[in-house]
Amino acid sequence: MRKKWAVMGLAASTLLAFPLSAFAAAEVTTAEVSTGLNTFFVFLAFALVLFMQAGFALLEAGSVRMKNAGHVAGKTILTLGIALIAFWAFGFGLGFGNGNGFFGYEGFFLSGEGMMGSFDALSGLGIPISMMFLFHLAFAAVSLSIAFGGFAERAKLSVYIIFGILFTVIIYPIIAHWVWGGGWLGAMQMQDYAGSTVVHLTGATAGLAATLMLKPRLGKYNKDGKPNIIPGHNQIYSVVGVFILWFGWMGFNPGSALSTLNDGFFTYVALTTNLAAAAGGVAALLISWVVFGKADIPSMLNGVLAALVAITGSCAFVDVWAAIVIGLVAGIVTFFTSQWFEKAGIDDPIYAFSVHGIAGMWGAISTGFFATPELVEKTGVGSPGLFYGGGFHQLGVQLLGMIGTFIFVLVISLLILWVMKSINGIRVTEEEEMMGLDISEHGSYGYPEQMRALGEDARK
Amino acid sequence: MRKKWAVMGLAASTLLAFPLSAFAAAEVTTAEVSTGLNTFFVFLAFALVLFMQAGFALLEAGSVRMKNAGHVAGKTILTLGIALIAFWAFGFGLGFGNGNGFFGYEGFFLSGEGMMGSFDALSGLGIPISMMFLFHLAFAAVSLSIAFGGFAERAKLSVYIIFGILFTVIIYPIIAHWVWGGGWLGAMQMQDYAGSTVVHLTGATAGLAATLMLKPRLGKYNKDGKPNIIPGHNQIYSVVGVFILWFGWMGFNPGSALSTLNDGFFTYVALTTNLAAAAGGVAALLISWVVFGKADIPSMLNGVLAALVAITGSCAFVDVWAAIVIGLVAGIVTFFTSQWFEKAGIDDPIYAFSVHGIAGMWGAISTGFFATPELVEKTGVGSPGLFYGGGFHQLGVQLLGMIGTFIFVLVISLLILWVMKSINGIRVTEEEEMMGLDISEHGSYGYPEQMRALGEDARK
Amino acid sequence: MRKKWAVMGLAASTLLAFPLSAFAAAEVTTAEVSTGLNTFFVFLAFALVLFMQAGFALLEAGSVRMKNAGHVAGKTILTLGIALIAFWAFGFGLGFGNGNGFFGYEGFFLSGEGMMGSFDALSGLGIPISMMFLFHLAFAAVSLSIAFGGFAERAKLSVYIIFGILFTVIIYPIIAHWVWGGGWLGAMQMQDYAGSTVVHLTGATAGLAATLMLKPRLGKYNKDGKPNIIPGHNQIYSVVGVFILWFGWMGFNPGSALSTLNDGFFTYVALTTNLAAAAGGVAALLISWVVFGKADIPSMLNGVLAALVAITGSCAFVDVWAAIVIGLVAGIVTFFTSQWFEKAGIDDPIYAFSVHGIAGMWGAISTGFFATPELVEKTGVGSPGLFYGGGFHQLGVQLLGMIGTFIFVLVISLLILWVMKSINGIRVTEEEEMMGLDISEHGSYGYPEQMRALGEDARK
Repeated sequence: MRKKWAVMGLAASTLLAFPLSAFAAAEVTTAEVSTGLNTFFVFLAFALVLFMQAGFALLEAGSVRMKNAGHVAGKTILTLGIALIAFWAFGFGLGFGNGNGFFGYEGFFLSGEGMMGSFDALSGLGIPISMMFLFHLAFAAVSLSIAFGGFAERAKLSVYIIFGILFTVIIYPIIAHWVWGGGWLGAMQMQDYAGSTVVHLTGATAGLAATLMLKPRLGKYNKDGKPNIIPGHNQIYSVVGVFILWFGWMGFNPGSALSTLNDGFFTYVALTTNLAAAAGGVAALLISWVVFGKADIPSMLNGVLAALVAITGSCAFVDVWAAIVIGLVAGIVTFFTSQWFEKAGIDDPIYAFSVHGIAGMWGAISTGFFATPELVEKTGVGSPGLFYGGGFHQLGVQLLGMIGTFIFVLVISLLILWVMKSINGIRVTEEEEMMGLDISEHGSYGYPEQMRALGEDARK
Repeated sequence: MRKKWAVMGLAASTLLAFPLSAFAAAEVTTAEVSTGLNTFFVFLAFALVLFMQAGFALLEAGSVRMKNAGHVAGKTILTLGIALIAFWAFGFGLGFGNGNGFFGYEGFFLSGEGMMGSFDALSGLGIPISMMFLFHLAFAAVSLSIAFGGFAERAKLSVYIIFGILFTVIIYPIIAHWVWGGGWLGAMQMQDYAGSTVVHLTGATAGLAATLMLKPRLGKYNKDGKPNIIPGHNQIYSVVGVFILWFGWMGFNPGSALSTLNDGFFTYVALTTNLAAAAGGVAALLISWVVFGKADIPSMLNGVLAALVAITGSCAFVDVWAAIVIGLVAGIVTFFTSQWFEKAGIDDPIYAFSVHGIAGMWGAISTGFFATPELVEKTGVGSPGLFYGGGFHQLGVQLLGMIGTFIFVLVISLLILWVMKSINGIRVTEEEEMMGLDISEHGSYGYPEQMRALGEDARK
Repeated sequence: MRKKWAVMGLAASTLLAFPLSAFAAAEVTTAEVSTGLNTFFVFLAFALVLFMQAGFALLEAGSVRMKNAGHVAGKTILTLGIALIAFWAFGFGLGFGNGNGFFGYEGFFLSGEGMMGSFDALSGLGIPISMMFLFHLAFAAVSLSIAFGGFAERAKLSVYIIFGILFTVIIYPIIAHWVWGGGWLGAMQMQDYAGSTVVHLTGATAGLAATLMLKPRLGKYNKDGKPNIIPGHNQIYSVVGVFILWFGWMGFNPGSALSTLNDGFFTYVALTTNLAAAAGGVAALLISWVVFGKADIPSMLNGVLAALVAITGSCAFVDVWAAIVIGLVAGIVTFFTSQWFEKAGIDDPIYAFSVHGIAGMWGAISTGFFATPELVEKTGVGSPGLFYGGGFHQLGVQLLGMIGTFIFVLVISLLILWVMKSINGIRVTEEEEMMGLDISEHGSYGYPEQMRALGEDARK
């Protein structure tokens, strides 16, 4: 009866845009289904990480003033567009093409064998190149968005375009190559499961370079050097941004398993990731309560993110209790370092270097302490940490990778920004900064009605 | 040609952070792929349900006044963090560990056999414990967020922390154990597919207890007892919050099938869920148009949610037409009950008890009327409803479960809140409530620029 | 040891709401797992496309004035509800039921064989009817949301309800039937992979009809016919809306592959889709910079969307470089046409016809130029394009489909709206338009506190 209806009422063939019967009817092998499953999993992970850009847009827009909010949100779309094209053309080849220990030099434009080349599968897992490109592109775009945190509220729009291209083509791919693309840190068995170092420390260090080169925002420091608080204009955006990032992180970390087989190991990664995030957020809120006398929401949000950053590299290597400790420490350390940087005259408007840089460093070295023998065996990378009888070997590798990344990215970023500053300047004028970058860079406010109502008051 | 490029341009091994070849190259069995598929499905469902927290943050923030919006959104992150840790430590064991008919007493800290224990698979479906923990944690966190709807705009921040822990450790797990964890309601074959009772009624009843204990907000009622409308400050947030919840519900209900096999039964669950939601929203809008003379948006949003709540328990047991009826009735009933409660002096700022409690009750008993023989056989739970020749048996079971849950949760919640009130108080001072909880509990406004512009006007 | 814990600590059977052991324990065949995988993939695609409604709500709300924002966001929920019910009752049968070359006439109410009928599988791929219904419903709802862009800020709420029903029951299904449901355009092998024509051009043309029938908003044009800019009130909403749409498009285009097998072809579709989006956004921003002297954010957002619209039809048929060209051209053409329409007196508040209509037309004909022989063979639809030696044949088919769709939808839509206008009017009064549709149609502001603060100022 039932089958009859399906045939009578709705002709099966008419429901399909395309004659899929060819492959549907064919005998499908278990290996093909397994490949389809892995590819689907990486696709979901890619989509979730891509969606993190919405999280950055909300988090950053919420953390700046109303006069800059349209600009800050809008440039996230622009830089994703730039990253996509630039990573397709050059970045992916430099990062993951065949090459030497420092960079790749093949596979540009995903071409070489024509368009159909993108259907080819990686040997082994069977995931097409087009999928692996998109997955890594999404990571590169996250790293770039992190970097641009350090540019907020004072860099020219053109700087985002030019630096965005150079970051995507040179800076990110080289670090990715070192660790994941067959480079020297990978050869030393550095442990960085989903990119505390490759993605977060790299982005945050570039952001730090910008913070140093751009100098503090107008009004951030008094003549005596004491910082003023410049609160973001919308905590609700920031909260929702963090939720989107947390959701996206379910692609970032578990997705880096690249498969749902392997005893469901990706679910263990999801477990450590979520518990760390929770510990970091709660710890940062409580610390802020003790220190400020008030339970500070932005501090809590930074605590969640810092914990997620730190566990990103270590999520597959550490015990559940260690994940909680790593998240908790990340939340606390980020709280204090963001205060210290602010007092030291470094005006990082959305605390990008504390949240992604310091926590990224902590994530990088954490496996040197906490990596367990079972998980090292499971992942097949590196050796156990100091607390598990592994001695100082892995800790040394992690430190080397962390320091090497920091120095390389800082030097190159400062160099690029110095050249850009010398040629055309990288910061808007004082007048433009006063009126806000929505007007100066885009010619219209993000909130035209509200800005009109706020009037002069908004020019602070 | 093509394969050559993949090998030449991008060395397969360099694309992977980890040597996955071990399991990729190995012979994969159909059973392993099936397990990987089921696990992936539950993972997606978990991620979607986790993301519902962003929906609650937006819905609730939009439904309160500007001076409380940062607090309301921010506490959602805090309580998710608390729930994660507390459910991992105690709640999951109490809910789903081996035990008696009332609670479990094993499996705390997901430990017992060390960290690797979390890789272990449930026998049968093969889904790892770490995955099942996260899935159930996401449900517990939803229940907690529902409860906190009843606390809005007047409870102290510390109350969220303490009550949040106790709810996650005691209240939710016990009800979950009763129905899903091997307890007495499960033994009686209560039908609650995805938690109209376990998740929604439980959370809403705890929220009702808070609403009763906290008393109405300042200015809600005139001296003569007539209620004033205190509109939420941002309907756009609320709308987007509802869309996120609707999206997340695609994990909540279909995800509770735990598998995409079984003739694709989860898609039938998705069908009933969506049709019910549509019916509830449209019905509530039309009723508000008739009653108020205007098509009220908050009423429509509550109608969508109420329908989703009601169909949550019955989605797998009822015909498509019955799903539409269940959603429609939920939308209408919630509309009227929210009016009645308001007139009766119960100030439930975001109508948590009407939307999740009353609709949860309706969802609980609805299968007693509408459960069909075919679907009872398909799911293997309970017996058909009154309208399908099942007599009053299943209706009785559903009523018993509903009443038992309501009474237990109400009594325990009132007790906890009474103790908390006696010791330290649970409500902010009048002055703090006037200035808003953003300032009183966190020391900064969610909207600093706009609140400064609104000035005295905002202190209402 | 480990397995022991799983058994001891957490009884497997107690973790499950339902006795799934029946199908879990049974021998699962590779074909069943393959079907479960395909079904899951379509389910994810459905969920992502459903979530696009949140993107439309934010994009549209952000693009209108504060006094209309609650209305614009809220009606998105309403129209999704209406579309769900109407498409279930009639639309799906008309679109995809057995019928003639112009419409289907079976399969209404998804019934015919009773509720269990919805478990039946399409022969071949094995995806249940309930899943295919939801997938196509999500597409229909997107088309409807596009149409309603043209109604913004001046149509009565009742118009949304009545036109929404008629669009879902008549307009969309007929075009869908022509191309995808066994109709005459499908028989001619028109290439429209995911709906540049079926979804976007159809919706946008209905929107154009409304734009023409409703006439411009008050204050849009001066007496001399020169247009005034009426900026949207919140660019951050619009940006996040575009990100959500971009995310949802990962279901729209790759999801239209209906399977993750087939050599992972869906990942190629994802690749072309993303590169086109990037090219369109960057191109539109740069063009606006040249033309306006400022890098205009709304123009960039429209560029991203236009490129996504154009690549929707062609994503599976064209080379990667061609995808970039298609996106780039879409971004530029949409920029200029939106200017031209505005100058020509067509007040399309959110540029729905430029973004979805013009770009949809471009997407429709683009395969006539760019379809490659390999991809035509892969998809099994149509013939190669003009630039690949296919001559003018496919271009002619695409043009015919595009023109036929445009004329049919425009005529029917104008007719419907003309009848509606004659009977009861379709536009709010001048006074209502001045006070805003939040108040006139719903009785409360979307932003009550801010509107109170803006006072008279907001009545512009």
